[in-house]
Formats: sequence, C-alpha cells, structure tokens
Amino acid sequence: MINQLVTNIKKTGAPIVVGLDPMLGYVPEHIQKKAFEEYGETLEGAAEAVWQFNKEIVDHTFDLIPAVKPQIAMYEQFGIPGLTAFKKTVDYCKEKGLAVIGDVKRGDIGSTSAAYAVGHLGRVQVGSESYVPFGEDFATVNPYLGSDGVNPFLKVCKEEKKGIFILVKTSNPSSGEFQDRLIDGRPLYELVGEKVAAWGEELMGETYSYVGAVVGATYPEMGKVLRKIMPKAYILVPGYGAQGGKGKDLVHFFNEDGLGAIVNSSRGIIAAYKQEKYAKYGEEAFAEASRAAVEDMVTDIKEALENR
Amino acid sequence: MINQLVTNIKKTGAPIVVGLDPMLGYVPEHIQKKAFEEYGETLEGAAEAVWQFNKEIVDHTFDLIPAVKPQIAMYEQFGIPGLTAFKKTVDYCKEKGLAVIGDVKRGDIGSTSAAYAVGHLGRVQVGSESYVPFGEDFATVNPYLGSDGVNPFLKVCKEEKKGIFILVKTSNPSSGEFQDRLIDGRPLYELVGEKVAAWGEELMGETYSYVGAVVGATYPEMGKVLRKIMPKAYILVPGYGAQGGKGKDLVHFFNEDGLGAIVNSSRGIIAAYKQEKYAKYGEEAFAEASRAAVEDMVTDIKEALENR
Repeated sequence: MINQLVTNIKKTGAPIVVGLDPMLGYVPEHIQKKAFEEYGETLEGAAEAVWQFNKEIVDHTFDLIPAVKPQIAMYEQFGIPGLTAFKKTVDYCKEKGLAVIGDVKRGDIGSTSAAYAVGHLGRVQVGSESYVPFGEDFATVNPYLGSDGVNPFLKVCKEEKKGIFILVKTSNPSSGEFQDRLIDGRPLYELVGEKVAAWGEELMGETYSYVGAVVGATYPEMGKVLRKIMPKAYILVPGYGAQGGKGKDLVHFFNEDGLGAIVNSSRGIIAAYKQEKYAKYGEEAFAEASRAAVEDMVTDIKEALENR
Repeated sequence: MINQLVTNIKKTGAPIVVGLDPMLGYVPEHIQKKAFEEYGETLEGAAEAVWQFNKEIVDHTFDLIPAVKPQIAMYEQFGIPGLTAFKKTVDYCKEKGLAVIGDVKRGDIGSTSAAYAVGHLGRVQVGSESYVPFGEDFATVNPYLGSDGVNPFLKVCKEEKKGIFILVKTSNPSSGEFQDRLIDGRPLYELVGEKVAAWGEELMGETYSYVGAVVGATYPEMGKVLRKIMPKAYILVPGYGAQGGKGKDLVHFFNEDGLGAIVNSSRGIIAAYKQEKYAKYGEEAFAEASRAAVEDMVTDIKEALENR
C-alpha cells in the first residue's frame, strides 16, 4: 500500500489526508435530523448521521486527495453502531480509490498485537474460511511496549502489503512529558524514530518503507531531525490547521523529492463550513466548504514547498 | 468502582482477575461446532463460539473471583460481530457482580481520548438522550501521549466513579526497549509511575485511588520499586502463569494490608483444560478445569503472601 499511497499522492499532487473524525457537533443539523427521524436519538441514529456526513464529504473531495484517516475513537464512542459506521466508511473510501489510514493507535504484547494487526490490516481465520474484519490499508501503532508490540504488525504488513505509522512525536501539547525526556543525551522520540527506521528496513516498498511514523506538525524542528533519522519512512503529520500547524512549518517533514510526508487535517476540512472563511457555503453545502478547504490546504503546502 | 473492586477482593479473598482473552484455538471443539452449525464458519459464528465459551467460564468461576479482564483485541479481530460478543461479555459479567476491566490500552490526544473514555467508561450524548456504549468499570490506558491523553479518562472516572489502569511496566520481553531507558538516572517506567501517583491523588476512593497501574509479574524487582512510588494505586499484574510469573514473584506488588494488587491470568485459566495438570476434566468440562485453575491460583498467591 505504500506504493499505492505514493502513486495517489503524485497523481493528485496533494500530500494530504482528510481526517474523518466526525464529532456529532460537526454534523449539520439537517443530516442529524434526518438520521434521528429514521433511527431515533439512538446510537444507530448517531452512527447513521456520522456515516451520511462522511459520505458526502468523501463524494465532494475524493478526486482531490490520496487518502483519508478515520479516527476510530470517534466511532467507538457510539458503540457497535458507531463501529459499523467506521467499517462502512473504510469500505466506501476504498471503493473510491482512496488509501485508508485507520487511526487506531493500537499496540499491546505480542499475541494481542497480532489480533489487532489481523483485525485492522489482515484476515482472520474462522474454520476453513478467512475474513477481512476492518480492512484498513494502514494503521497507526503505539510503540510503548517495544518490538514485541510492533512485530506482529510488521508480519501482517509483509503478508498483506499493508502499512503502519508508528507514534514517534505526537502533536498534542503534553507530548513532551515522556517523549522529550533525554536518554543518553537524546530525546526518547529520537530513539523511537531510530527503531522505526530499523523496523522499516525489512519492509521496503519501491521508494519508501511500509513502516512510517507519526510526527506532529506542531513540532517542526523535531520534524527536521526525525526526517533525517528516518529517511525512508513516510511521515504522517497531524496537527495542521485547527491544532495550530501552518504550511511553512511542514516543509521540514518532506524529503528533497517533495515526498515523504502526508499532512492530516480533520476539523479544518470536515467542519470547514463552521469557519468564517467558508461560511458563505452555508450548512447545507458543508461538503463544498470541505472541498474548498482541501484546495486551500493543498495550495498552502505547495507554496510552502516551492518557497523552501 | 475501586471501592467495589476492593470489596469484591476482600469478599472472595482472591486478588485475581480472569483474563477473558479467547483465541478461537482455546474454544473446545463442541462449542465451535455448535456455533458454526448455527451461523456458519463466519465472523458471527466465531463470535458466538467465543461468547458461549466465556459464558460457561464465567458461570463456573464468578463466585470465586472479584473481576474479569476481557482483552478487546481478541474480539476486535472478529470485526463487528466480535465486538458485539465483547459487549455481551461485559454486560453478562456485570450482571454476575464482577468488576469488568476492559483491557483496551487506548490513549490519544485530548479530544480523541475523550471519545475513548466516553465509549468505554462513560455515557455518550445523542440529541437529548445518553447511552452507555461499552460500559466497562475500568479501562487500561497507554501513557505515551502524556497528561493530555490521560486527563479525559480522569474526568470520566470522576463523573462516573470508574477507574483506569495506566501502563507503567508491561509484562512482555521487549518492554524494556523504551520503558527501562534511563532518564536523569532513573528508568522511564518510574517517571510514569510517579505520574500515575500524581494523577491518582485527585481521584481517591476509600483506601485506593481510581487511578491504578499495569506492572508485569515478569518484573518483580521493578514491581517492588513501583509499589513504593505509587502506594495508593492498585496494581494490575499481568504475566502470571503462561507468561512465566509465579506466586512468589508477586508478593512485592502487594501492600502490607494484603491489598493493592490484582493478578491477571488469561490462558492459564481459560485454557486450563489443555494443561496436563487439568487434563482429567476433558474438553467437555473445560469450565470445571478453569474453576480448578482459579482455586489453585488463589492458593498459590495466598501461600506466597503468608510466607513473605
């Protein structure tokens, strides 16, 4: 899938990913109303609203973007119906030719990580049959448990030609509490970055590895260092837009070839219609606002890369 | 719930938790056969087999134990039907009076952790209604993202009187890769342990905090240190039995009051019938083997505590 992702990025000229992290508060009134009329104010109703919201955004943006990143927590909070909407979203985006990054941040001891890897990226055996439980193309993985927790994902990536992005330096304000602590004079995130590079060596695609990293747009100087430590890792960069990252902060995450990074925006795209800048579209045409926000984001990053 | 957990532990005299981590390979032939006859060799069939397996084990052990710990990965690998079996298991165990620890190891940036906290421990708002999505009593939480990732769980714990166990030192062989690295001369896990103690201060139950920690039985010396760093934190101790931990390794995880730790065994209990020691029960009576394994585990720990 890393080759497919790179191909998609080259084709669209858009090194971005749309974060499908639908809080119910982002879903326009008319969509919520219709879903609640059909299913009541229930978990099923919420899940239907979220799904219809996603579908319309995907329909209005899929030709501009290489990938989407649904954040599973936003679905898991609506229980089983929510997770059903997650699965529908994954399937629909794949039909549309998009690479799907399941933002699941899983990670556990070996046998348990194996179950997560199978659940999200692989196939599970049931008697003589096998099934694809969630079927994302990529998953995000938490490294706190070390190699044992990552290896089962590597195995499934190899078998299924899928990919992972390992949390290295996250975008949130308190990410430094543990990640920045110095070990032999160097921050923990650099050691994790070195491991990402090592894990990735065994799993090379054409130009980039199946093993990528998550590094927050909110820490551009750290991104610069990590870019060098993991030259073959695609960097998934959250934190653009709503979290404060700007186009000019992003240039260090890219390699000289203009590849190597994919920048996520969630709220900034899916709830664009709530921003003053896109208010002219109105709530009914929320997905057109999202399309305009995608175009602006692509321009912002492109200009920053041209001016670096 | 921490008060309830402590009460349950005192009542049963069993500081243990049964890990309901059902690999399909653990489920006896006759249960699989029946489930597949009804649902085919499908995800639904696998989920039904797992649920029937769990139910029989719970029916045979609930009077001996204070708590269960379903590992959600083992259900997630069977997709939506698997997660439905997870939810059924949670509900059933609560009906039986057991404390339910959702071993979910979630953790993300603030708004996302909030969604996980609501999904597993809280209630989600849908219009004018609210629902309990998964409804565990406790959840395990990954600390790699720092306070931002933990605070939303603390908030829900406070509101709903629920609890969390934060990963401090995990039981797996490679847990030292990052967790043992020295920062200002002390291992990372000690710093995480100090944070656990600090987070827990605000959330005290009668004698223990709502904020507990995960420390592997496989690292008893580290358990000794961490016990002192987090005197008010309940320690959830995985790694007993199949992973190699023994009763005598566990004594350091307990406080002088004989409380403060709850030891998990998964395979060792739920697949006891596969061990030579319990083979006499046969596959049909697998749950009686589980009951015997629970009794033996309680005796092992009790003797170790008496002889310390």
